[in-house]
Parts: sequence; C-alpha cells; structure tokens
Amino acid sequence: MGKSHRLRKMLHQRRTAPPPTPGSLVIDPQAPRPTVHVMAYDGEKLTERDLRTAAELKQLPQILEQHKVTWVNVQGMGDIDVIRRLGDLFGLHPLALEDASNDHQRSKVEQYDGNLFIVARMLEGGTTMASDQLGMFVGKNFLVSFQHLPGDCFDPLRERIRRERGIIRTSGPDYLAYAMLDGVVDSYFPILEGFGDLIETLEEEIIRDIDADILARVHQVKSKLLVLRRAIWPLREALHQLVRDPIPQICEETRVYLRDCADHTFQIIDLVETYRELTSNLMDLYHSAIANRTNEVMQVLTVIATIFIPLTFIVGVYGMNFDYMPELRWKYGYFAVWGVMIAVAGGLLWLFKRKNWLPRGNRARRLPTSDVNGKSH
Amino acid sequence: MGKSHRLRKMLHQRRTAPPPTPGSLVIDPQAPRPTVHVMAYDGEKLTERDLRTAAELKQLPQILEQHKVTWVNVQGMGDIDVIRRLGDLFGLHPLALEDASNDHQRSKVEQYDGNLFIVARMLEGGTTMASDQLGMFVGKNFLVSFQHLPGDCFDPLRERIRRERGIIRTSGPDYLAYAMLDGVVDSYFPILEGFGDLIETLEEEIIRDIDADILARVHQVKSKLLVLRRAIWPLREALHQLVRDPIPQICEETRVYLRDCADHTFQIIDLVETYRELTSNLMDLYHSAIANRTNEVMQVLTVIATIFIPLTFIVGVYGMNFDYMPELRWKYGYFAVWGVMIAVAGGLLWLFKRKNWLPRGNRARRLPTSDVNGKSH
Amino acid sequence: MGKSHRLRKMLHQRRTAPPPTPGSLVIDPQAPRPTVHVMAYDGEKLTERDLRTAAELKQLPQILEQHKVTWVNVQGMGDIDVIRRLGDLFGLHPLALEDASNDHQRSKVEQYDGNLFIVARMLEGGTTMASDQLGMFVGKNFLVSFQHLPGDCFDPLRERIRRERGIIRTSGPDYLAYAMLDGVVDSYFPILEGFGDLIETLEEEIIRDIDADILARVHQVKSKLLVLRRAIWPLREALHQLVRDPIPQICEETRVYLRDCADHTFQIIDLVETYRELTSNLMDLYHSAIANRTNEVMQVLTVIATIFIPLTFIVGVYGMNFDYMPELRWKYGYFAVWGVMIAVAGGLLWLFKRKNWLPRGNRARRLPTSDVNGKSH
Amino acid sequence: MGKSHRLRKMLHQRRTAPPPTPGSLVIDPQAPRPTVHVMAYDGEKLTERDLRTAAELKQLPQILEQHKVTWVNVQGMGDIDVIRRLGDLFGLHPLALEDASNDHQRSKVEQYDGNLFIVARMLEGGTTMASDQLGMFVGKNFLVSFQHLPGDCFDPLRERIRRERGIIRTSGPDYLAYAMLDGVVDSYFPILEGFGDLIETLEEEIIRDIDADILARVHQVKSKLLVLRRAIWPLREALHQLVRDPIPQICEETRVYLRDCADHTFQIIDLVETYRELTSNLMDLYHSAIANRTNEVMQVLTVIATIFIPLTFIVGVYGMNFDYMPELRWKYGYFAVWGVMIAVAGGLLWLFKRKNWLPRGNRARRLPTSDVNGKSH
Amino acid sequence: MGKSHRLRKMLHQRRTAPPPTPGSLVIDPQAPRPTVHVMAYDGEKLTERDLRTAAELKQLPQILEQHKVTWVNVQGMGDIDVIRRLGDLFGLHPLALEDASNDHQRSKVEQYDGNLFIVARMLEGGTTMASDQLGMFVGKNFLVSFQHLPGDCFDPLRERIRRERGIIRTSGPDYLAYAMLDGVVDSYFPILEGFGDLIETLEEEIIRDIDADILARVHQVKSKLLVLRRAIWPLREALHQLVRDPIPQICEETRVYLRDCADHTFQIIDLVETYRELTSNLMDLYHSAIANRTNEVMQVLTVIATIFIPLTFIVGVYGMNFDYMPELRWKYGYFAVWGVMIAVAGGLLWLFKRKNWLPRGNRARRLPTSDVNGKSH
Repeated sequence: MGKSHRLRKMLHQRRTAPPPTPGSLVIDPQAPRPTVHVMAYDGEKLTERDLRTAAELKQLPQILEQHKVTWVNVQGMGDIDVIRRLGDLFGLHPLALEDASNDHQRSKVEQYDGNLFIVARMLEGGTTMASDQLGMFVGKNFLVSFQHLPGDCFDPLRERIRRERGIIRTSGPDYLAYAMLDGVVDSYFPILEGFGDLIETLEEEIIRDIDADILARVHQVKSKLLVLRRAIWPLREALHQLVRDPIPQICEETRVYLRDCADHTFQIIDLVETYRELTSNLMDLYHSAIANRTNEVMQVLTVIATIFIPLTFIVGVYGMNFDYMPELRWKYGYFAVWGVMIAVAGGLLWLFKRKNWLPRGNRARRLPTSDVNGKSH
Repeated sequence: MGKSHRLRKMLHQRRTAPPPTPGSLVIDPQAPRPTVHVMAYDGEKLTERDLRTAAELKQLPQILEQHKVTWVNVQGMGDIDVIRRLGDLFGLHPLALEDASNDHQRSKVEQYDGNLFIVARMLEGGTTMASDQLGMFVGKNFLVSFQHLPGDCFDPLRERIRRERGIIRTSGPDYLAYAMLDGVVDSYFPILEGFGDLIETLEEEIIRDIDADILARVHQVKSKLLVLRRAIWPLREALHQLVRDPIPQICEETRVYLRDCADHTFQIIDLVETYRELTSNLMDLYHSAIANRTNEVMQVLTVIATIFIPLTFIVGVYGMNFDYMPELRWKYGYFAVWGVMIAVAGGLLWLFKRKNWLPRGNRARRLPTSDVNGKSH
Repeated sequence: MGKSHRLRKMLHQRRTAPPPTPGSLVIDPQAPRPTVHVMAYDGEKLTERDLRTAAELKQLPQILEQHKVTWVNVQGMGDIDVIRRLGDLFGLHPLALEDASNDHQRSKVEQYDGNLFIVARMLEGGTTMASDQLGMFVGKNFLVSFQHLPGDCFDPLRERIRRERGIIRTSGPDYLAYAMLDGVVDSYFPILEGFGDLIETLEEEIIRDIDADILARVHQVKSKLLVLRRAIWPLREALHQLVRDPIPQICEETRVYLRDCADHTFQIIDLVETYRELTSNLMDLYHSAIANRTNEVMQVLTVIATIFIPLTFIVGVYGMNFDYMPELRWKYGYFAVWGVMIAVAGGLLWLFKRKNWLPRGNRARRLPTSDVNGKSH
Repeated sequence: MGKSHRLRKMLHQRRTAPPPTPGSLVIDPQAPRPTVHVMAYDGEKLTERDLRTAAELKQLPQILEQHKVTWVNVQGMGDIDVIRRLGDLFGLHPLALEDASNDHQRSKVEQYDGNLFIVARMLEGGTTMASDQLGMFVGKNFLVSFQHLPGDCFDPLRERIRRERGIIRTSGPDYLAYAMLDGVVDSYFPILEGFGDLIETLEEEIIRDIDADILARVHQVKSKLLVLRRAIWPLREALHQLVRDPIPQICEETRVYLRDCADHTFQIIDLVETYRELTSNLMDLYHSAIANRTNEVMQVLTVIATIFIPLTFIVGVYGMNFDYMPELRWKYGYFAVWGVMIAVAGGLLWLFKRKNWLPRGNRARRLPTSDVNGKSH
Repeated sequence: MGKSHRLRKMLHQRRTAPPPTPGSLVIDPQAPRPTVHVMAYDGEKLTERDLRTAAELKQLPQILEQHKVTWVNVQGMGDIDVIRRLGDLFGLHPLALEDASNDHQRSKVEQYDGNLFIVARMLEGGTTMASDQLGMFVGKNFLVSFQHLPGDCFDPLRERIRRERGIIRTSGPDYLAYAMLDGVVDSYFPILEGFGDLIETLEEEIIRDIDADILARVHQVKSKLLVLRRAIWPLREALHQLVRDPIPQICEETRVYLRDCADHTFQIIDLVETYRELTSNLMDLYHSAIANRTNEVMQVLTVIATIFIPLTFIVGVYGMNFDYMPELRWKYGYFAVWGVMIAVAGGLLWLFKRKNWLPRGNRARRLPTSDVNGKSH
C-alpha cells in the first residue's frame, strides 16, 4: 500500500463518492472475504458456529428460534451476497446496511424500523492509529455485528460468554451490545498510555537538546491525537445518546452499565484533550528553545567578532607600507600596540559581562526537578 | 475575468448592494441565458422537454396536471422574463425569487406560503473552489430549481429517473429534493480527497526541504478550506432543519433519507475541520522548520567565524611592519605561530563539540516512519 | 479633532460617564443642531415637512391624525428642547430617550410602554469605519428616528415613499422600520467589498515582497474588522429578536421581510468572520515570510563568509614578516597557495550545494496560480 | 505593602483558606475599623446618622420603623461585633455574612430566607485595578451594604437622596440597590477610556519604534484587562439574573431600570473583549516588527560583509610576501587590482539591488493615515 | 518510583485496562493496606473506633443502629476482602465500588439503588500536584468514604465533630458529605496561592533577564495548571449537580451549604483560568523578549562589523606589496588614510544614530511600576 494513502487512511476518508442510488450496496472487491461467527446462548445452553458460505447462513433462523440471544459476528465485507442475505434475514434497513459496509462512518446511534443501529470505531494497539469500524444491529433477540478486518478486541468477551453463567448469559442483546462497546472503549486506554509516555519523552528531549527530528515527531503526535479525538468524540456522543434517549431496545439495568461506559469515554476525552494541549505546549517549547539557542549562538558570534574585528583593524593599520609612518620607527611601538589591543579587548569583555552576554555554561539546560519529588502515589 | 476578483468570487460576495426595493428582481445582464429543462414523471410515464423561450413555458400547466412530479430545472439567470413567468406560474414568493436570482446566498431552508424554499451551494470538481448556487422551490407536485451556471452534478440522478421505476419514480417532489441535495453533498467528497492528498504532500515537502513556495501553497490551502467550511456549515444547518422541523412538504419516509444525507454533511464538516487544523499545524511546522534552519546556518557561520577570526588576528599581528618586533627575528618564530594557531583552533573545536554546535549531517531530515507501518486496512 | 481620539471614536466609546440620574437627558453642546424632517403618508396622500424650531413641532399632532404613518426623522441631537418635546408628544420613555441621545449604544430592541425602541448602527462608506447611531421608536401610527449626524442612507427609501403607491405606502410603521433597517444592513455590503479587495491586495504584496508598511496595514485592517464585527453582531441579535419574539407592533407580513433582512446580517457576519480569519492568516504569512527572508539573507552571509574567511586567513599567513618562512622562498609558492585556496573554496561550495544552501533565484516568489484558473462564474 | 502581593491583590485571591466551620465569621485584624452610615428616608422625611460604636446600633430598630427605606452602609470590616450585631438585627444568613466579610467573592445574586444578597466589585479610578467588594442585603424596608475600604462612588447618589423628592425617594430598597449597582457599573467607563488611550499610544509607539519597554507595557495592559474581565463578567451575570429571575424583592418598575444597567455591563464587556483582542494584536504586531527589524539589520550586515569580505581577501593576496609574485612587478598591477575590486563591488551591489536587499530608508515606518481622515463625528 | 511515570501520575491515568468483567474488583497488590476509621454520632453521643481487620468490621451493624450518622472512612485500598465486606454490609453497587477502588476517576455524582455515590479529587499541599481520590457513598444513616493513600485534609472536620454539638452533630450524612467536600475544595486555595506567587516571580525574572531555565519553568507551570484544571472542572460539575438535581438524600438545608461550596469551586476555576492565561502570556512575553534580545545582539554585531570591515579593507589596500603604488610614497599618505578612515567611521556612526541602531543602555529593562502604586487594600 503506497504511503500517499497514509493520511486518508488514518482519517477513514471515503475512497470514492457514495453510490448514486442511496441504499444500494457497493463492495470494495479487494476487501477480505467475510467469516461469519455465530454465538447463540441463554442461561442454559450455548451454540457456537463458524459459517463460511452464504449457503450455510440458512441455519440461522433455527438457531435464532432456539436461543434467547444470537450474536452474528461478520469479519470482512468482501462478499456482497452474504451481507445482503443477512440483511434480508434480520430485516436490516438498506441505508443502515450501506453505512455498515462503508468503512468511513462516524460513530452514531440510529433507529430503523425496530432495530437499533450502532456504529463505533475500534482502534488497534500501539500508536499506529489503524482502526476498524464496528457496525451493530441490535434486535429483540439478536445482535448482528460487522467488522471490516479480521481480528478484534472481543476475545475476552467471547471467553466470558463461554465460561460464565452470570449476567452476560441471562441478559438480552442490549447487554451484549454494552459489553462490546465497553470492550471497544477500554481498548483506547493502552493507546493513550502510549501517547502519555511519548509526550513525556519528547518533553525531556526538547529540554535537553533540540534537533529537527524532534520537531517532526511532535508534529506527528499532534496529527495522531487529532485523529484520536476525531474517533472518540462521536463515540461519546453515541454512548450518551444510548444512556439518555428512551430507546425501547435497551432495558433499565443495561442503562446503568452503559452510563459507566459513557463515563469511560469522558475519561478518554479528558486525556486526549489534555494530551493535545500538552503537545501544543511542546511545539511552543520547541520554538522558544530554538529561539533561545539561536540567541546564544548569536551572542557567541557577536562577542568574538566584536572583540577581534577592531583588533584586526589595528594590526592591519601597522601592516601598511607607507614610507612615512612614524609609529613604526618607535622603539616600543610594537609593545604599545599590544597594550592598546589588550585594553580594547578588556574593555569590551567588561562591557559584555555587564550586559550578561557572556555564555554561562550549560547550567540552564536541566529541568528543575526538586519540586516534583513530593509525596506521590 | 481579472484576477483581482478571485477572492470575492470564492466567497460569493455580492457584487453590488441589494436593490432598494426588497423583492424586486435585478438580473446581471452578463449572466448566461437560461435553459429550462423539464422532467415530469410518475410511476408510469416520463415526459422530458427543453424549453428555450418564455413562450414555451406555456406548456407547463398541462404537464403539471398530467404527472405526479414535475421538475423544472433552470440553468442560467440571464432572462428576467423567464424567471418572472415561472414565479407567477408556481406562485413563488418575490423575496425567495430575489434570493434565488442572486448568487451570494448562504444555504438555508425557508417556508413561503406553502412552498418550501431551499438554497444549497454546489462545488465544482478539483480544488478551484468554483461554485454555483442551487435554489429549489418544493411544492405539492413540483420542484423548480435554479442554477446560475450551465452544468451540474445531477446527470446520474436524471439517468436514474429515466431508467428506474423504483422509489425515485413513485415518491413525491420531497424525495427528488432529497436526491438533489444528496448529489450536492456527495460531490464534496472528491474535493476533500484532493485536499487530503495536498496536505500530505505539503507535509512531506516541509519535512524534506523548505522554500517560500511551500509557504504560499500552505496559505492557499488554508484560505480554500476556509471557503469550503463557509459553504458546508450552513448546508448542514439547512439539512438538519429539514430533518428536525415539522415541515409539511416532507413526508416521514423521505426524512429517513434526509437524515442519512445530513449525516454525510457531518462527515464532511469533520474532515474539513480536521484538515483546517492539520493545515494550521503545517504552518507551525513550517515556521519551526525555518527557525531550525536559521539556527543551523547561524551555527555554521559562528563556528567558522569564531575559529578563523582570532587566527586572522594573529597572522595580522606578524604582518605589522614595526622596526622592532623581536618574534620576527626568532628562528622558529614562524613555526611557533603555527603551533599557537593550531592549539587555538583545536581548543575552539573541542568547545563547540561539547556544546553540540558542530553540524551533524542530514540525519534529522527524515520523518521516523517505522511506527506507521503497523497493520492498516 | 486630534488623532488621539481615533480609536475611541471607532469604538463609539462614551466620552463621559453616564449622568448620575438615570433617565435624565444630557446633550453634548457641540453636537449639530437638529433638523426634523417629517414624512406622513398613507395609500392616498403624502405630506412632507421640514420643521426647524421647537415651536414648529406643534404641527405634529394634526399631521399624526390625518395619516396612517408619520415618520419623524431627527438629524443632530444638539437641542435638548426639541428632543424633550418629541419625547412628550409621542410618549417616549426617558431611559430610551437617554439611550437615543447618547451615541455609544449597542444595537438592541427594547419595549417600553407600548412603544418599540430599536437601536442600530449605520456605517458610512469607505473603510473609514465612521458610523452614526440610529434610534427608532415604533408606535401604532408613527416612527420617530434619531440620528446624530446629518446625512444618511435613506434617500432611496424616501424616493420610494414619494413615488410608489405599493407596499411601502399601504403598510404600517413596522414596514417602514423594516425598510430602514434593510437600508442600514445593505449599506454594509460595499464596505465589506472594500475589505475583500484590500485583503487580496495585501496577500499579493506579502507574497511578492515584504516591508514594514504592509505590517502596519494588515494590523489596521485587523483592528477595523474588529470594529465592524462589534457593530454587526448586536445588530444581528436585534433583528433576530424582531423576527422571533412576539412583538405586538410588528405584523406577520412584515416579519417575513425582517427575516430576509436578518438573513442579510448572517451573510455579513459570515463575511466579517471569514475576513478576520483571512487577516489573521495574513499576519502568519507575513511572519513566516520574514522568517524565510531572514533565513535566505543569513544563508548568503554564511556562504560568503565561510568561503572567504579561511581564504583571508591563508593570505594573511603569507603576509607575515618572519625572517625565516621557507614557503616564501619557494619558486612556485605563490601558485601553490592559489591552488590550495581554489581547492578550499571549491570544496566549501560543493558542501553548500549538497546542503541546498546556495540561493536558487527568485523562482519561489510567485504564487502557483495554475490551479485557480478552473471554471469560475 | 510588599510588591510580591501585587498580582494576588489584583486577583482578589483569598489570603488564607476559608475557616473550618462554614458560616463562622473570621475578621482580618488589620482591616480598617467600620464606620456605619445610616440614611433613612421616604417621600417626606430624611434621617441621616453616623454610628461609631456597636452600642449606637441600638437606635436602628426605631429608625427602621419610622421610614420606608433605611440604608445602612458599613465601610471597613475590622470589628466583628458590629457585623454580628447587624446580622442579628436584620436577620442576615451566616453564610452570606461570611461572604460579605471576605474580600474575594465573585459578583453574584443569592436569596437567603427572604433577603436578597448581592455581591458586586467596585473598581477605583485610574488603571491601577485596585478594587473593593460591595455586599448588599436587600430586605423589605432596608438595604445593608458592606464595603471593605473607606471611600466609594456613591456620593452623587447620596446627594440625590438628600436633594430630590423624585423617584429615588418614593421607591423601595430595590430601586436603591439598582442605583448603587448603576453607580458601580458606570464607574467602569472612565477606566476603560484609560485603557483605550493606552492601547492607542502603544500601537503608535510600536509602529514608530520598538524597545523592550513597550513589550513590558503591552504585557501589563494584557494582564490588567484580564483582571478587568474577571470582574465584569460575573457582575453582568448577576445583573442579568436580577432582571430575568422572578425575585420577589424587586418590583416591575425597578426591573426596567436594572435592564438598562445590565445593558451597560454589556457595553463594558464588549469594550473589554475588544481591548483584549486589540492588545493581543499589539503583541503580534510587536513580534512582527521585531522580526522585521532583525531582518533589516541582517540585510545591512550581509550587504556590507558580502561586499567587503571578498575585497579584503583580494588585497590580502597582494600583501603576501612571496619572492616570486609576478603581478606585483607589473607597472599597472595596483590599478588593475582596483579595477577588479570596483567591478566585484559593483556586481554585488547590482545583485543586491535586484534582490531588493538594499535598505530603502524610513519610508515604511509611518502608518498610512490617509484613509482614516474621512467624515467622523 | 521512576521518573518516567511522572506525567501519567499527575494525570491519574489508568495503569492497566479496566477488568474484562464490569463490576469486578481488581486490587493493586502494592497499594497500602486499608485502615478503617469509624465515627458514629448524633446530637448526644459519639463513638470512635479504628478497625484493623476484616473481622472487626462485624461491629459495624450494631454501631449503625445506635447512632444517627455513621462515618466509615477507609484509607488504603490494598485488601480486597475489607472492601467487599463493606460493599455487602452497606449495599454498595459493584460498578460504583469498582470506581471507588480505581484511582483514576473524574469527579462525579451518581445514584445507585438509593445510595448516592460521589467522587472528588483531593490535592495535596505545595505545587507537586500529587492527589488522591475520595469516593463517598451517602446512605440514609451512613457515609462510607474511600481514600487510596493515608493522610487527608479532614482532621479539622473530625475535631469539629468531637468538640461541637451544633449543626454538624444534629444534621444527617448529607451535611457530613457537604463538610467533606468543603474541606476538599478549600484545600485548593493554598495551592493556587502558590501558583500566583510563582507566576509573578517568573514574570519579574523574564522582564529582568532571560535564560533557558525560565522557559522550562514556565512550561512546567503551564502543564501543572492544565492538571489542576482537569481536576477542578469535573468537581464543579459534580457539586453543581448536587445543588441543582432533586436528589432525595440531600435535604434543603444542606443544599444552601452546598451552593456556597459550589460557589467556591467557581472562584477556583476563575483563578485557574486566569493563571492559565497569564502563563500563556508569559510564554509570549518570553518569546518576544528573546526575539528582542537577539535583535539587540544583532545590532551590536552589525554596527561593529559595518564600521570596521570597510576600514580593515582600506588598511589592507595599503598593505599590498605592489612595486608601483603612488600613495605609499606621499609624505602625508599615512595621515590622509587615517583621515579617510575617521570620516568613513563617523559617517556610518551618524547613519546608525539616525536609524536608532546604537544600543541605548539598559534603560528599557525595568517594568514601569509608577502606575501600580495607587491606592490598594
């Protein structure tokens, strides 16, 4: 994949204009082929299947009937047939299905004919900002989720469903939706931790020494935090909506959990905004540090040049070849010139000292750390 | 067209003050002559006409009667007669008609005596920011649209009306209005893509090398994004109003589609704001890169000057022509001077090395790309 | 008038603290003497009078009785008697009258005992930002307006009243108030056009060449736009209030027109904010252009100095007068030195070329215009 | 008073943490001793007393009974007895009394058991930003006001009460509260005028010449405007609340006057925000002016150095003492060298002229004033 | 504790992702072991106990029954058993208990099954920004509070409970919650005072002299204020919610006190935002001061170089060794050259004086303090 698509990738920009007919499905032919993973459960039993072909989807109605909750998880959107069939089977609205199949949506919550459609954005580990879109349809007894790439952060959740017989197994699809959103939101935390460490490292480097490399890295952190911010704000909005709006598919008990999850997005936003401001401050710090350094360099140049240029002029005078230059004949002329030159140099040095222009060593390059050693936890 | 009108053009500024009498029509005499294209249809039949003269407009009442939806599309506002006649025929309010005929309106939605008046701004391809105003009057069984320039982004829509017998043919003028707005909104996406690529290119160039040319280009992108933002925000507001307000001309089914379209404007705004911030960051990056470079240049100058200026002074001393200069007579005086000079130069070099002032090659000029090669989709 | 009052003038700051007793009238004795112009009309007849003395005001009750609408326009606030008498005659509230007679009010709408009191700010032509305050009292059958300076933008309106027999003559004082506000709002457009041109000119000049003069001009545009913004925002607020609030003096038909007028203020605000941001960008551009130029200048100095300072040192060495300097005796010593010097200079030039420090002519000084030549209208 | 308390002073920061028990009174022992001034009046009679000891306060119940309005004004909070006794006498809530006795409150309006408690901040003349807190308790027939320092802006108000028999004497304590707030708000205007003049002076100085002194002054104006802003915003909020909220102590007639007073705070905020932005612009202007000047200085240095350094090299060459230097023997060698040097200098001058690097005198240092001479009032 | 965790510490960032199962307790094994301090009281009696083991908690039900209010204060979260038992005993919701046991929550107010759950953040003294989380459960007759570290700011409160028989002893757990929140809020004031002094010191240092050390310190203050702001805003929000929302656990009398406490958070926010802006201004001031200084340094260099470089060229000319250089033979050639050189130097000096480039001493380095000596209090 060429690097000229990096930014657009991070921003999840549409590659092409939307299709002319709204609600029609257009599939990227290079997208990975879908794998359909079904987990159907209630307090008693648990059925797990991997459906690989569109034909195998015919088992779904039966599974649906026999369990309280059926979770159909689709990874990869490369087969238009599978998606269409699922749409028909669960009565998903074409506009929502179009949104689920295009990897450029903002997180949102929408209601379509009795189904609840939720879009969220999953970030992958590290600070690469690679992300995947999660589209969920929550119905009375099912949850259909679409992801564009293989691999997700739901394995611990799947384990919980398999092992536990507690709240996850006895609740409806709304609790499952909550658990998935909670998994998505919690996967943001380690990424933020990475940014926190990075910012701290950069700060220490700028204080210690500046080079153009740091500049590029600060700029990159700034851009990535912008992307992160763009992912988390709509997610918070969507969760807030789930908590606040009277949505029939979500029962009161689940709402308490969703409020907790929305609270986590608040913490994330808080950190993202704080990091954004810290990074802006780093840019300022860098800029001032450079200005400071240029000033130091200039002072050294000025001190050296200002002292030696007049001296060089003086020695130049007595290097002239005029026939009649009385000083040259004086016995102590040479020593007198040395005296004058030392006086000039000394006077200038004294002037510079008074103006605080003489460099004062590297004393100032260290952060004062004494006042951050207090009690911490 | 002289270049001194470029900015005003991009900002769609009025060329002249509005007419003294509100609701009176004033036509720019140099505007293109109007061509009136009529598409009238219902589930069964489709009538398509090109009316070229004011006289031919007389056919309209009959067409209106025979079809469920009549779409009258006017391109070019150069004939006051045609516009007035259409106004009379469809009962359009003079104030709205005045707005439709002046190409400087913000996108908006207004109701006038049972007709719905919508203004939207169409952007043309590329990053030239050329634009045209689309004024639509939505009535019970008609939609009259005014454009100021020939050419638009509705050809795929016209094809759909001609070919399909689906939702577009069976719905009312409100769905047609939606389809047109959807076309307008979707035409923003390729333009944004252009900006994304441009910003990425500029970022890479600034990291690699800086010149005044880049500065001008960043500034231009910044100005254009400002224009883009000015176009999209009111459009979003207008669409939001269509979705939210109880407007009798818009039926519930169409509202679902309009919500989808409003959603697209959200995505566009999101991208525009992100691009605006990225461009601001570029300006900062440029500025810091220049400061960095000036600092590097200064260091080189300072190192060279600080080493050679004292040396030149020393050789100047022994170029003086005093009669009595004992050193000149010493046998190894010349070599002693060389020794002193090498010692001075070496000492200064050691000092500069300790201060990290010696240039360190071009190592820092590359963006660290290692951490963006992770999994992406 | 001394220039030290320029800023305070532009900002319409109170010259003195308000009078200790609220609602008492204090008149600036140097203000121009008032001229009172009366236009009384209905669908049939039109009476026009210029009343010059307080005594002549006695005609007003009779005029009021005979016409549907009486417009009393006062220009100049230098006679406390005239203003007080008008206040008594039309039952204007003392607090409102105090506001009308002090030229430092923000635009606003207030209701006092059945009269509607509107304040708006009129800007004069050009970019001088000179302005006048318009205070209007709208009653059941009259409109009393106060201006502080002779001359206004209402002559076209007066002509319309004289000539037309249409809507302006058959409507009440609320429509007259609308027409005046419309005149005030529309007079902002040519001023904005002036700013648009100015900003464009400045941008081109900064790209082409920088000097301190441009800096002062950009700063001035910035300050003036701030003043403009300060005038237009409250005006928009006041108009919005007229459209939205249930004000008994304003009938539904006029409200449609006021909505159109409020819309114009939106357009103005839009442009003002855009211009403000463009001017901010200009300041940034200027700053970066200067930094860029300083960098260029430094590079030239560094290249020249770095090449010649070592060479000068070398020739200085062989200008020394030591008795024993073997090289001076060599036959080809002189030519060898030239060889060394050419080698040093060549090496340094090669180094600078590799670092891209050699100036590259004026290529970069032009704006890339190729991508703004697309289709425009 | 040591200067290290200056900033904290301006920001009215608490000197100590609040007392551990909420509602308990803690008095600064160094505060001035209170003087209690009583004005009791109605339409007919007026009683004025100065009470100096806590014992004399016993007269108050009788005075209260005999007059419609009793205004008890306390200046200085140094006697805990007096304050407590007043609290008991008028039934003031301990929490409110604690607020009134601590000079660090934001302006606010609160209701406590039938009394209305208003806090406002009075600024003193000049731009020193010294201020005093005014705490008012408005009851059915009394107004108790607390100030921390002797001296206030209410003398004109007291005169009005003594002389007039108009609205101030016939209205209740709510009108008195309005009159006091109006006095406080109006005392802000001359201070703002001072800032306006100061900003204008600074702007002119920066345009004319820059030195570090101006920088410190701009910074100081910026800090003071921040303090001013911090004082006025809560005051506006409090006044707005008085106008809008249904407060039983305030009758409808007084509300009209309070609306006028709230309007004045709008004007002040408007000016403060405008001045803040103008000062920010000044900082930018200063920064750009310095960058510009550095650039000019560098150009001069570069032109001089670039011309003379090569020439000095050339003359150095022919100052070498090689035995065999053919040019030295040429008859016109000396003149040839002069020719070469003049050619080099001329060529470089021509190059610099083409690059616009030669200084162009002081032309650019003047503000273009031609376009601000238009009509003003 | 390594310094690489400093920033994350200040920002209270989660160290690990939340546990996969919501509502499950995960305890940091290195956290301090809990000490449980119980104060149970009513108007008459007071029981105080330190419970050290999970077994001793069995006394709690009896204590609860015998007193009106029981305050259970837990310091240290290192024992999962104790926390779980308390949760069971008081019926605390698992999600809330999970929040209380993780030291990374934003301040908030939530209701869970009849208990009120409040989170607040306590700052420790000094400007180290070390902080601890306070989680409170307010029930009908109990208050359970969790802190993560030993030591808090509630000792004065405990003393009040022991000594007083007033409002604190007769009120319910809601007043106790208020008293604790008041203690938390009031502990912010001395910290802010520290910042005020620090900012003032930095301002004075920047005005007097600039070095890189100040830059790092300003940057650090900026970061810490960001942390402070992040702590106080949610706390204000939580308090506002307690005042405004109809929460059954809080009676009307306590609400008046909470309003006072919320008011204090307003003051704190006000100061924090003011300090943030002042620190931003300091960064600007620093930057401008550096630019100013660089400019001064450059001027000195330019003046010296511009004067001496031409002179050195002139003396170089007459140091050439051409056989035929007529001037060398002139009797007064030497003196003529001196004359020319003095003329050149004088002319340049005159030019620099006219351009105001000659340094003017240190006059400008002092803040003008004359206008801050006015009356202060």
